Amino acid sequence: MQDRKGLKNRGYSREDVDDRRRAVEEFTGVKFSYIQDCGFDPASASKNIENMIGVTQIPLGFAGPVKISGEFAKGDFLVPMATTEGALIASVSRGMSAITKSGGAAVRIFNDAITRAPVFKTENLKHCIDTMAWIDSNTDALKAVVKETTSHGELESIDKYPSGRNLFLRFSFKTGDAMGMNMATIASEAACRFIEKNTGAVLVSVSGNMCSDKKPAAINLINGRGKTTVAEVLIPEEIVKSVLHTDASSVEEVNISKNLIGSSMSGTLGANAHAANMAAAVFIATGQDPAQVVGCSMALTFCENINGDLYVSVRIPVIEVGTVGGGTRLPFQSEALKMIGCIGDGKAKKLAEIIAVTILAGEISTLAAQATGQLGSAHAQLGR
Amino acid sequence: MQDRKGLKNRGYSREDVDDRRRAVEEFTGVKFSYIQDCGFDPASASKNIENMIGVTQIPLGFAGPVKISGEFAKGDFLVPMATTEGALIASVSRGMSAITKSGGAAVRIFNDAITRAPVFKTENLKHCIDTMAWIDSNTDALKAVVKETTSHGELESIDKYPSGRNLFLRFSFKTGDAMGMNMATIASEAACRFIEKNTGAVLVSVSGNMCSDKKPAAINLINGRGKTTVAEVLIPEEIVKSVLHTDASSVEEVNISKNLIGSSMSGTLGANAHAANMAAAVFIATGQDPAQVVGCSMALTFCENINGDLYVSVRIPVIEVGTVGGGTRLPFQSEALKMIGCIGDGKAKKLAEIIAVTILAGEISTLAAQATGQLGSAHAQLGR
Amino acid sequence: MQDRKGLKNRGYSREDVDDRRRAVEEFTGVKFSYIQDCGFDPASASKNIENMIGVTQIPLGFAGPVKISGEFAKGDFLVPMATTEGALIASVSRGMSAITKSGGAAVRIFNDAITRAPVFKTENLKHCIDTMAWIDSNTDALKAVVKETTSHGELESIDKYPSGRNLFLRFSFKTGDAMGMNMATIASEAACRFIEKNTGAVLVSVSGNMCSDKKPAAINLINGRGKTTVAEVLIPEEIVKSVLHTDASSVEEVNISKNLIGSSMSGTLGANAHAANMAAAVFIATGQDPAQVVGCSMALTFCENINGDLYVSVRIPVIEVGTVGGGTRLPFQSEALKMIGCIGDGKAKKLAEIIAVTILAGEISTLAAQATGQLGSAHAQLGR
Amino acid sequence: MQDRKGLKNRGYSREDVDDRRRAVEEFTGVKFSYIQDCGFDPASASKNIENMIGVTQIPLGFAGPVKISGEFAKGDFLVPMATTEGALIASVSRGMSAITKSGGAAVRIFNDAITRAPVFKTENLKHCIDTMAWIDSNTDALKAVVKETTSHGELESIDKYPSGRNLFLRFSFKTGDAMGMNMATIASEAACRFIEKNTGAVLVSVSGNMCSDKKPAAINLINGRGKTTVAEVLIPEEIVKSVLHTDASSVEEVNISKNLIGSSMSGTLGANAHAANMAAAVFIATGQDPAQVVGCSMALTFCENINGDLYVSVRIPVIEVGTVGGGTRLPFQSEALKMIGCIGDGKAKKLAEIIAVTILAGEISTLAAQATGQLGSAHAQLGR
Repeated sequence: MQDRKGLKNRGYSREDVDDRRRAVEEFTGVKFSYIQDCGFDPASASKNIENMIGVTQIPLGFAGPVKISGEFAKGDFLVPMATTEGALIASVSRGMSAITKSGGAAVRIFNDAITRAPVFKTENLKHCIDTMAWIDSNTDALKAVVKETTSHGELESIDKYPSGRNLFLRFSFKTGDAMGMNMATIASEAACRFIEKNTGAVLVSVSGNMCSDKKPAAINLINGRGKTTVAEVLIPEEIVKSVLHTDASSVEEVNISKNLIGSSMSGTLGANAHAANMAAAVFIATGQDPAQVVGCSMALTFCENINGDLYVSVRIPVIEVGTVGGGTRLPFQSEALKMIGCIGDGKAKKLAEIIAVTILAGEISTLAAQATGQLGSAHAQLGR
Repeated sequence: MQDRKGLKNRGYSREDVDDRRRAVEEFTGVKFSYIQDCGFDPASASKNIENMIGVTQIPLGFAGPVKISGEFAKGDFLVPMATTEGALIASVSRGMSAITKSGGAAVRIFNDAITRAPVFKTENLKHCIDTMAWIDSNTDALKAVVKETTSHGELESIDKYPSGRNLFLRFSFKTGDAMGMNMATIASEAACRFIEKNTGAVLVSVSGNMCSDKKPAAINLINGRGKTTVAEVLIPEEIVKSVLHTDASSVEEVNISKNLIGSSMSGTLGANAHAANMAAAVFIATGQDPAQVVGCSMALTFCENINGDLYVSVRIPVIEVGTVGGGTRLPFQSEALKMIGCIGDGKAKKLAEIIAVTILAGEISTLAAQATGQLGSAHAQLGR
Repeated sequence: MQDRKGLKNRGYSREDVDDRRRAVEEFTGVKFSYIQDCGFDPASASKNIENMIGVTQIPLGFAGPVKISGEFAKGDFLVPMATTEGALIASVSRGMSAITKSGGAAVRIFNDAITRAPVFKTENLKHCIDTMAWIDSNTDALKAVVKETTSHGELESIDKYPSGRNLFLRFSFKTGDAMGMNMATIASEAACRFIEKNTGAVLVSVSGNMCSDKKPAAINLINGRGKTTVAEVLIPEEIVKSVLHTDASSVEEVNISKNLIGSSMSGTLGANAHAANMAAAVFIATGQDPAQVVGCSMALTFCENINGDLYVSVRIPVIEVGTVGGGTRLPFQSEALKMIGCIGDGKAKKLAEIIAVTILAGEISTLAAQATGQLGSAHAQLGR
Repeated sequence: MQDRKGLKNRGYSREDVDDRRRAVEEFTGVKFSYIQDCGFDPASASKNIENMIGVTQIPLGFAGPVKISGEFAKGDFLVPMATTEGALIASVSRGMSAITKSGGAAVRIFNDAITRAPVFKTENLKHCIDTMAWIDSNTDALKAVVKETTSHGELESIDKYPSGRNLFLRFSFKTGDAMGMNMATIASEAACRFIEKNTGAVLVSVSGNMCSDKKPAAINLINGRGKTTVAEVLIPEEIVKSVLHTDASSVEEVNISKNLIGSSMSGTLGANAHAANMAAAVFIATGQDPAQVVGCSMALTFCENINGDLYVSVRIPVIEVGTVGGGTRLPFQSEALKMIGCIGDGKAKKLAEIIAVTILAGEISTLAAQATGQLGSAHAQLGR
């Protein structure tokens, strides 16, 4: 390892980073002026990246304040968002203003589990059934095997999907305040080895895509993954008018035509305007896995004109986030989590609630903009 | 505007950023030590964010080198990836090593258009049909209207989806080297106003979710959005063994069981292991819209054992990227684009090809890891 | 063939049918009293079935009359429906009564093509591209090859979906008044052989499931298959009340909650109450392929309260029907087609329009029943 | 009622049928020669149809014999199929011959429940949560309410899907040997009224489309509806050759390219060749609801070359069938059920197993035909 230099340098110190970056300059002929400007000790990112050569700096702003009445998030929040899309924060803030002036958004979490779904090959249907029966009889033993691999994780349940001699399992884990994908993978591998040893079924892959991580899967839309979260607000008529410059009836109509009918006609999983936008900006700011924005993109937005007031809710069946581990340990991301009181143990559900309300705010504002035909002009003014 | 201070400050200068950040500190009680460390002039991000208070710094590394034989990307590349997920770059680099040792990956783009899909309300089916007929007869006029709104964009075609008195259109635009969503939205609004004026149809929303932007929509999976891109590589048996530590038959089996069968049984759009991971890391590094990772998450990966050699391809129907405008203008993101020779005009297709090959590399490595049962241990060693 | 008797008898005469049925009686120990009661010459079904032993008799009724203002179907119709589901015809008739009293339903067809989608294996991406280029340059030659296989069919267009070395094509055919699946298959095989010979691509299967026949496929939902048909009606408030015993607002709400939101949350292709019911009953009565009911099951129903009046439309992207060939030749099915003036050449579009309006009627009645909470009681009274 | 004549005649006797048919003749100007040929007492269909005017006669044949080793179906069966699609029975019989010569197919049922999914409107998220909590605390009371409505049905479980103030429930029922949809609807209405009374939640519709009946819904694909059934067979190499005229490797390739890749690329729920065909023919023959063919159309077919032998399995997550009630009571349909020993109580699972194996046989034969490029010629010879 000592001899490795340049592109093959595998070290994590600032010197290693500099050495690699220079090698990249040499390889590509590009002279870097910015990316070396790393505001933290690269060694602290040793579990977050390999081949580090510097940093990307993403503009960080806030949306809000927004008043939230959750089970875990209570009070007024400024939500950190890292984005390069002009008009996004302005739009979300407008939605948050409407929410706050309406007394705040309610939000609740309905399920909380991370899943990993291995696939086994059995000899035939009979062996498949025998394997399923063994699993049913040995759930406690499997939970114990899992417990040996993790102090925070816990195997909650196992769903079984036989398909001929292919046997798909779907393990559901509690993972504390970690997003938990790695914990679940390691635990699943141990459980799978135990199943292999006792049943003769052969593990084909620890992930058989019924998990499903970072893919738009109906199984997650329906049965949930991470934290299934629902947020709502009732916006009085005068606030719809003064803040959103439209009326409840118009927003309801846009939501029906666009989010409900249009999503159906285009074969979309979920029904929302741009939930992924808000998820991405908060995820990046707070050190979440940005590929898991895919889960949030399946949100369902509902709008209803109630005697002139505007009721809006979002159901987000998949929010896969954590407040310990992964990117949350990095100093910039840590500070963003602190902004919303979401750093460390006991905070993951609070974070999910805040993300859900942020998505709610973004949906409200964009639907209102589309209801008044101003989407393009907003981007023209703020964003192009 | 002069009077606005603190949270309500709407300025873009460094002083404004500092002022707002202090207001956030006051509001939240958090004392920031990192996020103020902004390595560029905040004013240069005035079209990328509002309410800026600093930056998020994401570790930036490279994967590769990887040899690419595209129509636009030719040669050996080090691909910039911004990530906080340990093991990701190491894994992609392993896949790239296998690709490069195999003589490189081929890659081609098959379609290139960005779409915006307004929805109109007509009086009834007859009026809907009349509106459609008017549009068919006035395509050139509509193209001219679009041309007035943009120097780079061009309206290519209009698909029509009547649903009772609701009329959904799907405009397809060429947008040069910009990702083009804003251009398309502004152009669509102009076209819609023209349609309204001439037909009496009423615009409900400039986006009727048949576009579909940042949502997992089958219409994009099937008909494409952005750049529909396909990449492939044939990895000789000895390289499968020496670099990937497995064999073609095992990888083929994992792909069938997991990506094809598992994705089908979980109701997934697309069939891949983790395409969104690679897309997210390159998107963030190069200033793309991270919410559009959703499009890439619908990739289809195919593996075949050809007499012991391993053939792998990815079909990515949706790569929505640009090399001008949006986040690409920011200095850190610019440098990442320079690393791969993808800054500015004439480079967007090259970027799409590089992203496709990066996804290919990531798929190869992860499928190989799952084929040998080492996914968890890789994360345990590099990532937890 | 002469020697074959009993279960192995391959003849089509009444004697052959009787012989086989006796053999079935012997094999199963069941003595038949009904199924031998075949009201037509079995030989006339020689192209419709093998191993015939008798008939199934399905009760045949009519729904209506219903007033239709289509492009092809104009006037008042009694629609033949073969069903064993009590309450279905009563319910559809109620919907038709509402339609007729409202002045009738409008209906139009927007596309008309049957598709067949072969899949080829090419050597690699380059060969795949070359094959696509050859096809683009030889469309006329391919049309001529098709023309040699059919007097009624015509190749209209070819969509191309490359996926690595796998090349999927989607042929669209005009098939006159036949449903056209067999015609399309035979024509496609000829075209594929011609492609194979000229390009070296190897046909893997004449159907690569991008057709897609008798499966719930988003490609059909979005791009259509068979006849894409839209029907609508505006029901005045007093008729909503007197015939449907509810009000427009309640029906609108049921449609939003159930067909739009519920379908989205359950990951459904399409958004309707029970379109498949009406399709099945008319398909069976008129000799259509009942497995193609799957296409109709993806209909989208839209309801709107317009100042107390109830607007309802259905968009049915997939109606695969014919008035010549297949089951339409059989005498009972023929008579059902005659009931609606849909037998023989030039009638397939008329049939599609009538089916669409029948589906519209069934949707109206069921949504109204659910709006008043009477679904169960209707079945209890008429159907259990 | 006495006065009603002609089209408005609501009676069920043969005279009423004749009277109505004559009225239809008068209305349409068509003189019927066939449909009056009804081989059973129309009054016996009084719970199966309204407005009866005669019958449709569908040719009835048999496929098989096929050897089945199920939990409920054991032995050799001739399967009744009512169809007008030439070549279908011949094809299925070929598949059955391959199965039988291979020692028979194994088949098992993994779940068995019919679902009904009402949707309620609550005041807000808090009320929604309170309602959910009440339901959790009163499951036994709800089961008792259900028990009052049915002697055969039983409420098994309730899944809850909150979406803002909209609350979707999914009731799962055991329904004995009835398909059970009506039983479930009536029971659900009673349960819903009880919930309304105790919680103040308002029932919007007894079916909120998360059931989902007769629609292609991922929730059924994933979580099952009716009887989730898996069948398999291992066909020795020599039988693949002698009966199917192909080899295991070719069939495996067709299955991968067509059923797995093609279905994914076309956004299909399920992955099969034509499962709906077999389902439709057996459903019609045995008095099942033909609109529920939609459920079977989501089957997944898996083929594997095991050292030259061909392993094929089908997973059919949705088989909604019964052997009592509905169309099974009619005399022709009854006889078809008797042919396979499936009439009356205790037989519904046996029927599901037989249907699954019939689908397996049809898949095998069609995939083999496509593997040898003979699909079109088979139809040309037998079916056009």
